Amino acid sequence: MDAAGKPEGARAKITVAEFNKLIDQHLLLAAQFGMRAERIGHGTATLRLRFDAAHIRPGGTIAGPVQMALADVALYAVVMSLLGRVELAVTTSLNINFLKRPGPADLMAHAKILKLGKRLAVGECAIYSDGEDEMVAHVTGTYSIPPA
Amino acid sequence: MDAAGKPEGARAKITVAEFNKLIDQHLLLAAQFGMRAERIGHGTATLRLRFDAAHIRPGGTIAGPVQMALADVALYAVVMSLLGRVELAVTTSLNINFLKRPGPADLMAHAKILKLGKRLAVGECAIYSDGEDEMVAHVTGTYSIPPA
Amino acid sequence: MDAAGKPEGARAKITVAEFNKLIDQHLLLAAQFGMRAERIGHGTATLRLRFDAAHIRPGGTIAGPVQMALADVALYAVVMSLLGRVELAVTTSLNINFLKRPGPADLMAHAKILKLGKRLAVGECAIYSDGEDEMVAHVTGTYSIPPA
Amino acid sequence: MDAAGKPEGARAKITVAEFNKLIDQHLLLAAQFGMRAERIGHGTATLRLRFDAAHIRPGGTIAGPVQMALADVALYAVVMSLLGRVELAVTTSLNINFLKRPGPADLMAHAKILKLGKRLAVGECAIYSDGEDEMVAHVTGTYSIPPA
Repeated sequence: MDAAGKPEGARAKITVAEFNKLIDQHLLLAAQFGMRAERIGHGTATLRLRFDAAHIRPGGTIAGPVQMALADVALYAVVMSLLGRVELAVTTSLNINFLKRPGPADLMAHAKILKLGKRLAVGECAIYSDGEDEMVAHVTGTYSIPPA
Repeated sequence: MDAAGKPEGARAKITVAEFNKLIDQHLLLAAQFGMRAERIGHGTATLRLRFDAAHIRPGGTIAGPVQMALADVALYAVVMSLLGRVELAVTTSLNINFLKRPGPADLMAHAKILKLGKRLAVGECAIYSDGEDEMVAHVTGTYSIPPA
Repeated sequence: MDAAGKPEGARAKITVAEFNKLIDQHLLLAAQFGMRAERIGHGTATLRLRFDAAHIRPGGTIAGPVQMALADVALYAVVMSLLGRVELAVTTSLNINFLKRPGPADLMAHAKILKLGKRLAVGECAIYSDGEDEMVAHVTGTYSIPPA
Repeated sequence: MDAAGKPEGARAKITVAEFNKLIDQHLLLAAQFGMRAERIGHGTATLRLRFDAAHIRPGGTIAGPVQMALADVALYAVVMSLLGRVELAVTTSLNINFLKRPGPADLMAHAKILKLGKRLAVGECAIYSDGEDEMVAHVTGTYSIPPA
């Protein structure tokens, strides 16, 4: 068992292809923003947000809400990697610290579970500009898990 | 002086019309989402987000990132109501608690300043479904104020 | 029904005397810090933290953790005002923005419920120096409600 | 340069002994709670909080504010590891997620810098019960850096 109480090496309960299909069919905003899952493990997920000039805000940087949306969907993928397609899991709180203004490039979100409980799942997500190593934003979020 | 250290009754340093023009010209995401300022006072702002079926997520509710975006822009309006067009003010952190799943209706955001400092402005924002009185989400956010 | 879904004018399910007794008997840290409830309504609570030189940090101000503790206990009182003595309710998250460095005076915490759900209660708390009107800190917190 | 923009392998600008002396002389609450730094690197700090029955709350677990205090002081050590004795650095915001109720044991806090800017430093802190590997609490905090 690892720190989040899950068996190490367990398989994700949703695949990259399944999650991307879910984006296309049910997460309209994520689809419109141009998000794709690239890797999903048991309790981890990496998503890419394609750069889009429509996301620029004054100062030439990517708007904060676009970053929040990316983290939120990445954490949703993490929850599904552990529980399968619990589409009715909903975010109950999200906290974001903006660390660096990202330039015009794809954003990469690396999310992982901190704690999977019976009622709540808590995860964190680090966002980077593609190919850079300074963190752009750090997010923690809590999802409410619907009763089984 | 009131609790936030501003003279009571002072006039907002940006008008509703000016802020909505700013949305149209520079806040592309806010424009695309369908946000409009309805009232701006000295340290307060009320924004409306037009309901759009594209914002629905599984469960028939409005996606969390749409609510975060609305609060972020409402707090940006609050900062400008106190400082004028400081377009380079940027969000440094945002915390949201989702309280109730909003149904298919416009969202109203009521934002106000908590503290205007030299470097940071902190505000809070309450979101409601139009015409209802149960709070949908509560947000606090911090903006970094660019040096004069 | 008011915004938090409770009947207006309902009576608090714990009295000031009962909550202060709870502090003395079970909330050792709150007792040691010198906290007292002064008013408890249905979904609201006001607590006082007696000034104590032992709480000063560099800069001559009251240490942040003392303020966090005060808000946490004030929100606990709010939860009990709605649900009675659910002593096993626990904080699941807390977010604080420090707005003004409080000088050497009692602190007053004014807390209220934002949302009472079946599993979670969310509240906010504003802290002031006694007799002043600039907010010292703003807190939101979430409590997990034990199954009945 | 590593992700936080600091030269890798740089030396901490405060030692464990210096920081513990600071606790004893100026951080009265931390001293009273029984906190000691065990390791300080350039942008990292590990602190121990000695178990004390006075910190227990209903349910037999260590009170949340004690955990918040520990994280706050650990992040303060991180800031000093990068900037030296900037005692007037103050917390501007702190967000904590409580993940697991810690039993009667010492708490260990592992803190690190996420971003060191000119005005603000942002860090995160993970808290564990000594000798266990499930995270007890996760904290992000922002410190305001006084002008040089």
